[in-house]
Amino acid sequence: MSKQQIGVVGMAVMGKNLALNIESRGYSVSVFNRSASRTEEAIAENPGKKLVPTYTIEEFVDSLETPRKIMLMVQAGAATDATIQSLLPHLDKGDILIDGGNTFFRDTMRRNEELANSGINFIGTGVSGGEEGALKGPAIMPGGQKEAYDLVAPIFEQIAAKAEDGEACVTYIGPNGAGHYVKMAHNGIEYGDMQLIAESYDLMSRLLGLSVDEMAEIFNEWNQGELDSYLIEITADILTHKDDETGKPLVDVILDAAGNKGTGKWTSQSALDLGVPLPLITESVFARYISAMKEERVEASAKIKGLDVTPFDGDKKELVEKIREALYFSKIMSYAQGFAQLRIASEEYGWDLNYGEIAKIFRAGCIIRAKFLQKITDAYAENPELKNLLLDDYFNEITQKYQKSVREVVALAVQAGVPVPTFSSAIAYYDSYRSADLPANIIQAQRDYFGAHTFKRKDKEGTFHHDWYTK
Amino acid sequence: MSKQQIGVVGMAVMGKNLALNIESRGYSVSVFNRSASRTEEAIAENPGKKLVPTYTIEEFVDSLETPRKIMLMVQAGAATDATIQSLLPHLDKGDILIDGGNTFFRDTMRRNEELANSGINFIGTGVSGGEEGALKGPAIMPGGQKEAYDLVAPIFEQIAAKAEDGEACVTYIGPNGAGHYVKMAHNGIEYGDMQLIAESYDLMSRLLGLSVDEMAEIFNEWNQGELDSYLIEITADILTHKDDETGKPLVDVILDAAGNKGTGKWTSQSALDLGVPLPLITESVFARYISAMKEERVEASAKIKGLDVTPFDGDKKELVEKIREALYFSKIMSYAQGFAQLRIASEEYGWDLNYGEIAKIFRAGCIIRAKFLQKITDAYAENPELKNLLLDDYFNEITQKYQKSVREVVALAVQAGVPVPTFSSAIAYYDSYRSADLPANIIQAQRDYFGAHTFKRKDKEGTFHHDWYTK
Repeated sequence: MSKQQIGVVGMAVMGKNLALNIESRGYSVSVFNRSASRTEEAIAENPGKKLVPTYTIEEFVDSLETPRKIMLMVQAGAATDATIQSLLPHLDKGDILIDGGNTFFRDTMRRNEELANSGINFIGTGVSGGEEGALKGPAIMPGGQKEAYDLVAPIFEQIAAKAEDGEACVTYIGPNGAGHYVKMAHNGIEYGDMQLIAESYDLMSRLLGLSVDEMAEIFNEWNQGELDSYLIEITADILTHKDDETGKPLVDVILDAAGNKGTGKWTSQSALDLGVPLPLITESVFARYISAMKEERVEASAKIKGLDVTPFDGDKKELVEKIREALYFSKIMSYAQGFAQLRIASEEYGWDLNYGEIAKIFRAGCIIRAKFLQKITDAYAENPELKNLLLDDYFNEITQKYQKSVREVVALAVQAGVPVPTFSSAIAYYDSYRSADLPANIIQAQRDYFGAHTFKRKDKEGTFHHDWYTK
Repeated sequence: MSKQQIGVVGMAVMGKNLALNIESRGYSVSVFNRSASRTEEAIAENPGKKLVPTYTIEEFVDSLETPRKIMLMVQAGAATDATIQSLLPHLDKGDILIDGGNTFFRDTMRRNEELANSGINFIGTGVSGGEEGALKGPAIMPGGQKEAYDLVAPIFEQIAAKAEDGEACVTYIGPNGAGHYVKMAHNGIEYGDMQLIAESYDLMSRLLGLSVDEMAEIFNEWNQGELDSYLIEITADILTHKDDETGKPLVDVILDAAGNKGTGKWTSQSALDLGVPLPLITESVFARYISAMKEERVEASAKIKGLDVTPFDGDKKELVEKIREALYFSKIMSYAQGFAQLRIASEEYGWDLNYGEIAKIFRAGCIIRAKFLQKITDAYAENPELKNLLLDDYFNEITQKYQKSVREVVALAVQAGVPVPTFSSAIAYYDSYRSADLPANIIQAQRDYFGAHTFKRKDKEGTFHHDWYTK
């Protein structure tokens, strides 16, 4: 019996779609799922495809060419460990396990090391693009043994999304957990992008009183320019959908309580561990948490008067353009923070990340795909050692140009009573980063005062302690 | 030979001062340090005190009354584990180890459980107040076995700081890691308080052009009113100190690069894990990180023009009062977030925390001691189930009164180019928390669009998915 070229474990929607994507490029694919019914469903739904169902781990492993290439598309965490343990006794040295789940990068580092001791290669790979991306072409961020990745690369290059210039949105990211780290950072950036869009919508809705149709039109226009991106595009589309039952715009009936799967949180926690300022993404995680407290907010809104939102009575069109500039400005702050985090993580974990290549593979397939990622690629092509995107000429100039708008929008929103946590965090980061002097001298003086933590001086080297208790 | 009533391991400054504090209340204290020289120093520096030096673990343990009470004042982490391991073979069932370091609460939970298996009690206790507090009276936050704490309580009640009403600033916090968790949250709040003071200073300095002497006077005045607190008091004092060498105000020569020992970071990471919005403290942690990038900021300030700070040309005295109100408002937001975090942590870990008692012991001894903590105690006395401090009448009214000032100050700072990350985060939290509707409906729509994550509806129960791809 002939062997299959690759196997996929896990026939939930992401696994199934990825298997179909691989099959559509001419590969034969063995599939396996812990409960047989999902496998049967996947096969029944897709007649005539080179998907080969298997119903035991042994049968699945036996059905594959060696070195085996096995893609795990199961739930991150315990389920992934359990799947690996069930496969392990049947594998041979040199086989390649590929975890395509949203796995915490430290788990991938651990698994990569443990499996290497058994001679098994382990690739942890980010796969972004949701269900549709998995089927038609995701962005793929593989990390692990380079020589093992090289054996999988021909398949990944075919199934990946293609950027406008035809390049596949996949590149070898780095050793052990590098791929999952970059996917995590991608998701953190996605949280920031989504919150920035939500704040823009809130301002247009609450402050400007624009209708859902008008906002659909505006997001559609924005998608023709600098903000051209998947998330802006789908926001424009979302705003055109009506609720079948009530006839209202669908967004008006959707509950404003955002869920999360934890990858945004991980991004913030990692930044906190690395000592990297990541305020914008973190504010967007907290904004989801506040949104989820719907009942408590409704109660609070009855009790806490605060300020009624004052409708804006100036030139609406002009303000919409300022909101657009504020959004682009803030998006740049978020990516500047996110890419700075990648740089520090790369140093910390020895990954030797290529930031320009990472921006390149984000250009298509993934949720944060956007025209502006080309600018990031260009910036790192110009200077691969760039410490922060804000130091690049393009980003320096455009943020210089748009800073006035973000200042105006934040000032207006704060005085009108509309919360703009990420917009205001963006301008605080900009003004902090470009400040040669910040007021942290006061903090150091306080720390030395109550805890003898010592301080450094501006005018000479060394570490000093002041005797604060005698003058 | 007579036995000592309590032992202290670790003769660095905190351990030594705590031993002296205990001794000053009439207790006999055995002391031990891994390197003998520190013990010898402590004894030599303090002739005539009932400190009994010991130079081996055996001698130390043998010198104590049973059940032994042993206070560990060593570095958090590996050093604490090593100390416990060296003590363990010499201990008897019922002995009590008390870790007074800045230990991560999960380590305390683990140690409490492991030692309980050997019949040893383990109290993890927060000790706040710095060197001076340790010597004269700290705030103490003990967690662990209640029955073991009861044996230590008479000592702790004597060495603790006393509030104005004479109450000792110590109370049993809860089982296992509860004490260290509360100490961690205390430190997180401390980060927020310090950053708020730093931003107020920055505004008075950069925007108003006030001199260091003028600011010393202002902080001194602030300390007479609602803001009456240790950190405001020492800030006023700090601003009066001159540098011996240059004659300049000392703050002007102190490098603006803030250090940290990790407790603020832990607080934010725990909030992220618990799903609790904690933006203000987290912004203050990130503000320290940005400050620490001194060299990069100096480089950036040369390259990124941004906006020159426009000096304020209105009524300075009036603006100073608005900054004071903004500071008090923002401080309330920070404590509202911090105490909400304690509530969720208490539910998560089964600690049954008493928030009013916690606020009470913060009133003296510790770094965040402040007159306004009485208001928090009062709020929880009024309603022990209070979900958020902002729902309490006092806090609702005072924030209602001061919100206008914080809006004006943030709008002014943002338009002038002075970074105010925690002030702006405070108003965003206020406006989010009191918003019955937030724009997270857009986020849920996007998540359902690209990931089929489903959403809930405002008008009925259930979980829904929309087919976005066909209209």
